[in-house]
Amino acid sequence: MKQFISVDDVQSIHSLVTQALAYKANPLKDAGLGNGKKIGLLFLNPSLRTRVSTQVAAKNLGLETIVFNIDKEGWVLEFEEGAVMNGSTVEHIKDAAPALGSYFDILCLRSFPSLQSKEDDYAETIIQQFIKYAGVPVVSLESATLHPLQSLTDIVTISEVLKSSQTNATKKPKVVLTWAPHIKALPQCVANSFAEWMNAWGEAEFVITHPEGYELDEKFSKGATILHQQSEALKDADFIYVKNWSAYNDYGSMPAVNGDWMLTNERLQQTNNAKVMHCLPVRRNVELSDDILDGENSIVTQQAGNRVWAAQAVIATILNSNS
Amino acid sequence: MKQFISVDDVQSIHSLVTQALAYKANPLKDAGLGNGKKIGLLFLNPSLRTRVSTQVAAKNLGLETIVFNIDKEGWVLEFEEGAVMNGSTVEHIKDAAPALGSYFDILCLRSFPSLQSKEDDYAETIIQQFIKYAGVPVVSLESATLHPLQSLTDIVTISEVLKSSQTNATKKPKVVLTWAPHIKALPQCVANSFAEWMNAWGEAEFVITHPEGYELDEKFSKGATILHQQSEALKDADFIYVKNWSAYNDYGSMPAVNGDWMLTNERLQQTNNAKVMHCLPVRRNVELSDDILDGENSIVTQQAGNRVWAAQAVIATILNSNS
Amino acid sequence: MKQFISVDDVQSIHSLVTQALAYKANPLKDAGLGNGKKIGLLFLNPSLRTRVSTQVAAKNLGLETIVFNIDKEGWVLEFEEGAVMNGSTVEHIKDAAPALGSYFDILCLRSFPSLQSKEDDYAETIIQQFIKYAGVPVVSLESATLHPLQSLTDIVTISEVLKSSQTNATKKPKVVLTWAPHIKALPQCVANSFAEWMNAWGEAEFVITHPEGYELDEKFSKGATILHQQSEALKDADFIYVKNWSAYNDYGSMPAVNGDWMLTNERLQQTNNAKVMHCLPVRRNVELSDDILDGENSIVTQQAGNRVWAAQAVIATILNSNS
Repeated sequence: MKQFISVDDVQSIHSLVTQALAYKANPLKDAGLGNGKKIGLLFLNPSLRTRVSTQVAAKNLGLETIVFNIDKEGWVLEFEEGAVMNGSTVEHIKDAAPALGSYFDILCLRSFPSLQSKEDDYAETIIQQFIKYAGVPVVSLESATLHPLQSLTDIVTISEVLKSSQTNATKKPKVVLTWAPHIKALPQCVANSFAEWMNAWGEAEFVITHPEGYELDEKFSKGATILHQQSEALKDADFIYVKNWSAYNDYGSMPAVNGDWMLTNERLQQTNNAKVMHCLPVRRNVELSDDILDGENSIVTQQAGNRVWAAQAVIATILNSNS
Repeated sequence: MKQFISVDDVQSIHSLVTQALAYKANPLKDAGLGNGKKIGLLFLNPSLRTRVSTQVAAKNLGLETIVFNIDKEGWVLEFEEGAVMNGSTVEHIKDAAPALGSYFDILCLRSFPSLQSKEDDYAETIIQQFIKYAGVPVVSLESATLHPLQSLTDIVTISEVLKSSQTNATKKPKVVLTWAPHIKALPQCVANSFAEWMNAWGEAEFVITHPEGYELDEKFSKGATILHQQSEALKDADFIYVKNWSAYNDYGSMPAVNGDWMLTNERLQQTNNAKVMHCLPVRRNVELSDDILDGENSIVTQQAGNRVWAAQAVIATILNSNS
Repeated sequence: MKQFISVDDVQSIHSLVTQALAYKANPLKDAGLGNGKKIGLLFLNPSLRTRVSTQVAAKNLGLETIVFNIDKEGWVLEFEEGAVMNGSTVEHIKDAAPALGSYFDILCLRSFPSLQSKEDDYAETIIQQFIKYAGVPVVSLESATLHPLQSLTDIVTISEVLKSSQTNATKKPKVVLTWAPHIKALPQCVANSFAEWMNAWGEAEFVITHPEGYELDEKFSKGATILHQQSEALKDADFIYVKNWSAYNDYGSMPAVNGDWMLTNERLQQTNNAKVMHCLPVRRNVELSDDILDGENSIVTQQAGNRVWAAQAVIATILNSNS
């Protein structure tokens, strides 16, 4: 694996999941793999779980880990080719990325979308420029349109639950991604990425439900059943992934929504005692009710904990591919 | 020791002090104790000595150490039970703490009081919620009402000075905590905590002096002699602990003060050549004069240096109790 | 070496350069040198290359490395002797530096000039106070008037290029430091420091070119040929170091400039196929054109990469001198 930007970079989801669960069972089993190697975690935006879990994962593999909040500890980068830099940007990605690349064996980058220009965001200009100029493997810590470490974690978590519940393996589990309300416009990253990974994984019946106007880019959602009635979608679900996103078509907007889309325990009645997932952070009682988050069906803490093992599997795979 | 939030968590102050001084003599004597373990230092507020000394302590024990400025590198946390999170808070402590707890063996947290609500601050809502939801031992890096790592350091420093001065051990040293002026309202943490620890330690004659209106919560000060005349309090003192705090009763206010409470070398004449302590940062020539801080009676640098050994003793004790 | 603040602290530039290139060939050859030692990187200002490369260098030597953004994670320091601290400064350098010094074996500090007071800046008040009170070796990560880690890197890079090009060693290379345009007033540090090091090194014909009004402090530039015509200066140059700086005489001002000082490939025609250097960050198409930075004559990425080896040589030399 030369980079980890989307599911397309992955040879075998199954292998990554197996490796992640092996690290969960034995975190330090490859404690010497990263000896003498360095990994840089670069942030253009805030982060909690991704920041901490990726550091833990890297340390478990013996890598020297350096965190750099480019936006706060450095300065504003320029990404436009040919820019005359007489404004607020201080350094061009073409100069910063090769310098950073020369210091590290692996670079990880978080950069959110602007939600202003669909074209720029969906071209993944920022992370693509990093990849182009850094000269070392790049791992996405969430980019403009995707969040692959989260999606790998999600499949690890679903696999883990299925294993422990020893359900009859002849029927694929039903996994529903449901849109949820929020007070501000959020990126489509987590939803895009989850859809992309679920479709590539193929080991679930995958349904997406959202209000009209919130259609995802078909590039990612194609292959899923898409429903506009949440109640219809939830029927017999084994897993419900709850997430808000803003509109893709009328880019970054928040079209008015009919009805109440916040999941509650009452709605879980229609499901097959579904486990409820969320990537966090979650706005309680806006996106998801207290009764679900504090109840027995929520697996959000297990899911958040698995971020470490997913990251560890990805970093180890890159180290093994490039040594 | 399951946590380190107040003196009540400590089995033996004497043992912690002995261990701290043993680490000062030989910092790396337990360099492998934390192997494979991880400690998280979480900050909701600024920090200098605590931030750095606790990292050094953890590294001396071989722990992987991750620092996370939640307020600056993450986002605003919600602490209210049942909150409808449609405002500025992005993640509830009920979701953030278990995730963070799953990444670390020990979590350390700094969270200052609001000084707005005595009830909330003195309920220690923030750190208590962390403890409730984190699921791993929590160490206070200063909470709303207490600063136990500082107080342990203070007793380590007093013990060290007494040892080196080989004073006649038959008489207990006189230790005076004196209020000092400041330009803004500060928490009562350091004063509360020092009082609590001195009373629990019991190896000194302990006097608190402050202007009227600056009474501390009796829960902490009970057992000390309390005087409103600084000059009376200072008489024959062996140690003077200088610190400002705002009012506890008229919570967070700064009642007008008669006379000048800033300690100077002249006032040291009344003492038994007292050593002068301060937790730092100190406002020079407001809280404490240059002539004292730059003079021979000040032990503030020795005291600041001892922060490492106090933290190391606490972390080691927790590791030994939970392994 | 007791400290690394200017070229005056260096016994032999040649030895440092040799050591830096040896580390580039074998980064981990002294991986145990810093065992049990701690280095603190303190920032009063933003940093990218210096921040990351110095951490990498320290880790290559086995030092425990702690980064502290004093300005953002701590509070505002006071540097004035005798100040009555009733304003915005929270802690005096006289109290902060000894505390920090007690935690570390080496302290590194970045502190930019104010560009308000030539006297204060050129007295190097901040870093000199740190040195005075810290009690441990101090390394400049760029101070008010100098940037010695950059200048050592620059000479390492020039030496490396000369070696690999196997030029006839009988003639000294011609190195030109040229002023370049910028949109805001920058410190003179990099230019001062480069001049100081080039003059001390003595292994190049050294020319400085800048518009009138941009004369550097003669303390640093004395010994160089100084020209006000860039085209004249560039003739037959082997290396061109491009950098903006504000005026030293009319301190911090930006006197009006005749003509265009931005270097382009066209101007390289006059040179001996000169290599182009810049310390970065660079304002593209303001200070330096895209065609140069993206062309074959630019060695800015090689130069940025060498920051690690220069820092590693300096830290190793300090460790070896003080053990």
